[in-house]
Amino acid sequence: VHVAASSKDAEFARVPRDDEAEWSEAPAYVHFTSNNTIFGTEFAAPPRTPEGPFLACDASSDIFSRPIEVERYGLVYAGAQKNLGPAGLTVVIVRDDLLEPPVRELPTMLRYRTHAEQKSMYNTPPVFGVYVMGRVLRWMLAQGGLAEMARRNEEKAAALYAVLDRGEFYRPFAHPDSRSRMNVTFTTPSPELDALFVQEAAARGLDGLKGHRSVGGMRASIYNAFPRAGCDALAQFMTDFEKKHG
Amino acid sequence: VHVAASSKDAEFARVPRDDEAEWSEAPAYVHFTSNNTIFGTEFAAPPRTPEGPFLACDASSDIFSRPIEVERYGLVYAGAQKNLGPAGLTVVIVRDDLLEPPVRELPTMLRYRTHAEQKSMYNTPPVFGVYVMGRVLRWMLAQGGLAEMARRNEEKAAALYAVLDRGEFYRPFAHPDSRSRMNVTFTTPSPELDALFVQEAAARGLDGLKGHRSVGGMRASIYNAFPRAGCDALAQFMTDFEKKHG
Repeated sequence: VHVAASSKDAEFARVPRDDEAEWSEAPAYVHFTSNNTIFGTEFAAPPRTPEGPFLACDASSDIFSRPIEVERYGLVYAGAQKNLGPAGLTVVIVRDDLLEPPVRELPTMLRYRTHAEQKSMYNTPPVFGVYVMGRVLRWMLAQGGLAEMARRNEEKAAALYAVLDRGEFYRPFAHPDSRSRMNVTFTTPSPELDALFVQEAAARGLDGLKGHRSVGGMRASIYNAFPRAGCDALAQFMTDFEKKHG
Repeated sequence: VHVAASSKDAEFARVPRDDEAEWSEAPAYVHFTSNNTIFGTEFAAPPRTPEGPFLACDASSDIFSRPIEVERYGLVYAGAQKNLGPAGLTVVIVRDDLLEPPVRELPTMLRYRTHAEQKSMYNTPPVFGVYVMGRVLRWMLAQGGLAEMARRNEEKAAALYAVLDRGEFYRPFAHPDSRSRMNVTFTTPSPELDALFVQEAAARGLDGLKGHRSVGGMRASIYNAFPRAGCDALAQFMTDFEKKHG
């Protein structure tokens, strides 16, 4: 693996810029993860890549949160558990030419070709998960499709970032151009207030706000299924908490 | 792969006998499938094997239908979808020494060692399936455990085999010493009557009795979750159908 670009120096608070990438000689593919759930960063658009290698994307945590230009990708894969349905299945979108025999020997089950040829029925599929995902996809279509999902997710995230940007009390973790619409990460002025925030929020029914242990602070995960009303309630709580403790 | 024993000559209507096995020089392991859902055959006990190789068993279709002497096996694996819960998870029982580094390179996800070390949480687990399986396992314990499961499954299967053995109309497919307690396979005197049987049974609410396309005839799948009352209803229908068409 050649790491073409990293924002480690910036503590992963932003996604790498296109002009930072240093490509290897003849890459076979370029892989990126479109949304980072831990740091709360997201690519607004896929990275620009050299001619030749195909683009592969782990879209597990923001798939179907907005339309993507699917023709730009060779491979998109996404675990269902964030935006699609129960954990236990993975959606794969793969370009036909990438289904050709693999360059090295792979177990049968690990070849996308196997699953494409058998129409995803090579093994006994996880029927319940597939069924629920089907219902979720129909729900998305009924709501207005991915364009409407994108509009709602923009609004939901904006309601929270507006509070974070309003004063000095809250510190948003991600740089403005790299902000995730799925995971909003932030801190208060102190770890003690962070802990109190999580505790008082939970008492008001706003649960699961503790940040990932590797970064601390708070994280509001607002995937497709999370309603606008929940974001508004959190924004109101944030305002109240700032008044009380700021 | 060296096939040590096969009952192909008997159209797979029985499981191989221990005295038929021809072992290769120094086998690493011996693999067998304890129950065959298509032909309706089942090993009453695991095959006798030479000293040295460990015994590996695909127990997908009869796991927890009865107690097994787990210390005789190096590896038992079973898809959940027959006796344990929804499709989408697999139970693996593996001897500690078989978790040592593999003899050939394997993708990380395909090493049992990975999953053992991470307590089955290396990947996001299929939470719903795991939850339902937990409920099923508790139900089994509350019923009296595997000994009680075995007793019930014996009785359920016996109710059907008794009708098959009573006269000349029905022909059980599996040899008596190889009969499955999970899948009871049989035919009537003609393919036309087979089709009529399936049709009339369905009209009486007895569904899914058509045999696998590779063998034809009928197949009654009576896994752990299938109630005794269902077997009695089928036995009664079989008796009625024989009176009418025999």
